[in-house]
This record gives sequence, structure tokens and C-alpha cells, in this order.
Amino acid sequence: MQTASADDAKGLAVVAFIDQLRAAREKNQSLLCVGLDVDPRLAPPHVVNRDDWITEFNRGIIEATQDLVCAYKPNLAFYESQGNAGWQALKATVEMVSDEVPVIADAKRGDIGNTAEAYASALFDFFKFDAATVSPYLGEDSLTPFLEREDRGILVLCKTSNPGSGDLQDVLCLAADDRMIPLWELVAERVVSWNTRGNCGMVVGATYPAILERIRAIAPEMPLLIPGIGPQAGDLQASVTAGMPQDASLIMINASRQVLYASRGEDWREAARATALELRDSINQACAGVMEIM
Amino acid sequence: MQTASADDAKGLAVVAFIDQLRAAREKNQSLLCVGLDVDPRLAPPHVVNRDDWITEFNRGIIEATQDLVCAYKPNLAFYESQGNAGWQALKATVEMVSDEVPVIADAKRGDIGNTAEAYASALFDFFKFDAATVSPYLGEDSLTPFLEREDRGILVLCKTSNPGSGDLQDVLCLAADDRMIPLWELVAERVVSWNTRGNCGMVVGATYPAILERIRAIAPEMPLLIPGIGPQAGDLQASVTAGMPQDASLIMINASRQVLYASRGEDWREAARATALELRDSINQACAGVMEIM
Repeated sequence: MQTASADDAKGLAVVAFIDQLRAAREKNQSLLCVGLDVDPRLAPPHVVNRDDWITEFNRGIIEATQDLVCAYKPNLAFYESQGNAGWQALKATVEMVSDEVPVIADAKRGDIGNTAEAYASALFDFFKFDAATVSPYLGEDSLTPFLEREDRGILVLCKTSNPGSGDLQDVLCLAADDRMIPLWELVAERVVSWNTRGNCGMVVGATYPAILERIRAIAPEMPLLIPGIGPQAGDLQASVTAGMPQDASLIMINASRQVLYASRGEDWREAARATALELRDSINQACAGVMEIM
Repeated sequence: MQTASADDAKGLAVVAFIDQLRAAREKNQSLLCVGLDVDPRLAPPHVVNRDDWITEFNRGIIEATQDLVCAYKPNLAFYESQGNAGWQALKATVEMVSDEVPVIADAKRGDIGNTAEAYASALFDFFKFDAATVSPYLGEDSLTPFLEREDRGILVLCKTSNPGSGDLQDVLCLAADDRMIPLWELVAERVVSWNTRGNCGMVVGATYPAILERIRAIAPEMPLLIPGIGPQAGDLQASVTAGMPQDASLIMINASRQVLYASRGEDWREAARATALELRDSINQACAGVMEIM
């Protein structure tokens, strides 16, 4: 996984996502990724009333939690639904996070040829995200423009946390050697084969710990982004146990609404910090139950 | 397929996508969809030099072709890669198309729960697209916020036109009744079952006419968006023959670069019109070879 540092378009030395993630984990003693899913219906009303509320809300959350996380993960849907203001606030948000903490675009993009190139350019050159989530449905060539960016993290959807994820992902498929395996397992094997530059990871929901354990066995050294604890009710201890790699820097446990909307009052920043701290410590405690890592 | 007209958020009567598509086909005698994939490397340099070039380029293309198409289809990747200017130009572009011609967001979105809702809201409420492409990988519940918009067209990726589409889409899967069928076929069957509001369609590449024919058999009355003629070298006659439904209003043959970048000189609008006219007539001729429709 140790990708070398690469030079970005400006000629500046940039740190590979995986190294940045490890450094943030080390510095903040944290495997918590905070999902910056801004929602005007859930944020404190006195903040939402401001013109530039998305940027200011994120600034408050980031300032309150930046020393407690290993990564941030804005989901682009929430910004797109806020129109031009959302789009501009997303760019401002990526910029305001310290260089020491990686920012993951939860974009789930997947398109072909020159279109995939344009998406990679939007996420990595315009917004300057350190990593992005992508969908595997269109195949390897659709991901090439992402995979080629060896300093960025490419997190491929494998088994998602939603109840309907089984509609396609659990269907049994004919794999090499005549094995019948679920589609998520076939995807995990494909991602391992696509990972020639060591910059891939996978997204695996906390809601399916047994599947998480199997995916970890297929990809022992790949970073796994694990959403679905909290409102989606995944079991934290089970997820940590199942997802734990040899080196614990390689899981990111995501929480979004729990942290962001811990309070809708004047104390929203303090409440977000308290929740993030509690989650960070719970994750570390769950890790300690598996092995000594921190 | 005959969905009733619904009222949008403003209380205005809106025409369902499928009716709008049929009316545009009828009026313009066309099954041609023009993909508005703006690319500064391919557009006429004297246009790209302008500050608001994306909007002005699209205005030129739309004015030159609006009476020759059944739909427009901007792919969001190209707008996102142009930053804030691209985002704003995309909104201006959707607005400048006549209400008589539907505009399809080629977005290939797919996410879960409240995130999927936010994407649907971005595309249908903020941008006011008439239809959108979506990815099936996350399952039915991920598409619910789209499927519920019964006046909009929901075009699900089934078999894409790229060479790597087979990586997952061609894998043999165990379907109901112990049949072993490719994943694209399983997806086509799922989409038929998800189509309870009659607003679904599918995306099927022109590069695989035999697959197109099979999908048409599974979904005889569903609109099919067919990209992949032209630079991707799909065979127009084979695609039309394979995709032809009982009622020819239900295929959209997409062309993008061929039309948009027919000339990089001062005559770019005229060249785009000439190419669109030629394509429209070729498609109609291919149709005439199958059945009398126009």
C-alpha cells in the first residue's frame, strides 16, 4: 500500500491519501471519519438562517472535531441539492480542512471514457479531494481515470449499508474456477485485481459484519470505509472486529448525522465535539478488544 | 406507460417525461438525442475564449438543433469539471431548452436513503431536469426517491457501451427459477419490477445490438436511451432494428461529440445543424427499414 508521493499539477509535492490517512490516525488517535452531510432540515435553525450557512456550519463542525478524526467525508448529494451556494460551499469546505486530515468525496461516480476523466478532474483537480468513492457497475475501464491518480484514494462501493443493497449485490454469480459467489464478493476480488497502484479501498456497510469479515479476508491490506453505524444501526464492535486489518490504520468508521446534529441549539459545536470524542473513544475501545493498536 | 400529468412544487401542471418525449418525437420527426457534453479541448477556440463560453456554446447548439431532436442529454461530469462556472452554465442550459423538448440529466447517480433524496432534489427541483440516468448497483431502495417522481423519467443503467462493461454486467448470475443469466439481464428484469409508476427506462449501449434486442424483449414498452453510435462505433441500423419497440417513440439514439464538434470554425452552428439533420434522417431511414413509423 505504500504509494510514493507524487507531484500534483502545480508541481507541489503531495502526500498520498493512504499516508495522509495513517498520519491523521496517528496524530488524532482516531479511526473516526465524520460525514459532512449538510441538511437544512437538521442543522441548527439559527445557523441555517445565515446566507453562507453551509460554509459556516462546516467551519464550526471542522473546528470542533478536527483533532478527533482520521478523515472527513462530504457526500456531494447534499451540496448539489443546495444549488450554486452548495457547490461553492463544498469547495470552501475542502479548502478549510487542515492538510493533515484527508477529505473524501462521497460521490459514488461511475461513467465511461472521457466522462470518467471529467469526473476525476472535477473531484481531484477542481475540488482537490484526497479520495473519492466510485461505483464498480461500469467496469475497470470506467475507473481507469481514477485509478491512475496514484496519490488519491479510490474507494470502490462493494457492499453498501442500505437494506436494498442485496437486490444486486447479494445475487450469486459464477466466478473464476466455477465458484458461485455473491456479486459483492466478485466485486471485492475485482477491486483487488484493479489495485495495481496500491491506491484502492472499498466501501462496506457496518450493517453486515459477516460480509465485512469476508471482504477483509479478500483484501487484508486495503483501507475500508465503513458507514452505517448510528442511525443505520450497524454494530460498532462487530464492525471493528470484522473489519480490523493487521494494521488498524486501515479502517475508517463513518458517522454523519450523529455528530453534525448532536444539538440544534447554541451549543451545536460543543455537542458535535462531545459526540465525536465519545465515538472516537468507543471505536478505540472496540479496537482494544481486538488487538493493541493505539 | 401513460403516466398522468402531475403538479410540481410550484403548482404548475407539468407534462410527464414520456409524453414530452413522444410529443417532441412527433413534432421534430426525430429519435435523435443530442448529448451536450461540453469540452473546452474540442469546442471552437474562439468560443472557449469567452467568459461564459459554456452557456453560449450550448445556446448555439440548441438554437441550431432544437427542431431536429427528441431530447437533450447533458452529462454532468463535463459541467462539474468546469467548477462553479460549469455548474451555473448547466442550470442556464436546462432553462434555455424549449419546454417542448425534454432534458435528461446524464448523472448516473446512485446512493442511499436521505442521500438519494438529495440527489433527486438536486436534479429535479434545483436543475429541473425532465429525466435522469441512475445506477442500479445499490438496489431498489436507493432509487425510490427517483422512482417516486412519476412525472420524471428514470433511466437505469443496464448494459453500458464501454469495452469494460462486461467486467460486471456480463457475469452470469443465478436468477429466479434457477436460470443463469448475465447481470445486465437480471438488472433489466429488476427494472421491469421496479417500474410500478410507468416512469422507468433503461440505458443500453448501441455497441451490443444482440443484448439490446434481448432487453427490448424483456421490456417491450420501456424507453431505451441508446448511446454509443459514432465515436464508439456502434452500428446504427443494428441498434435501431434491435431496439425498435412496437411504438418507435420509445428509443432515443444519442450522439454527442459528432454533433457538437462537427466544426471548430466560425461555422460551428451550421455544421452542428447539418450533422444533426443527417443523423436524424439516417435514424429515420434505419427505422423505415424496420417498420413504417414516421
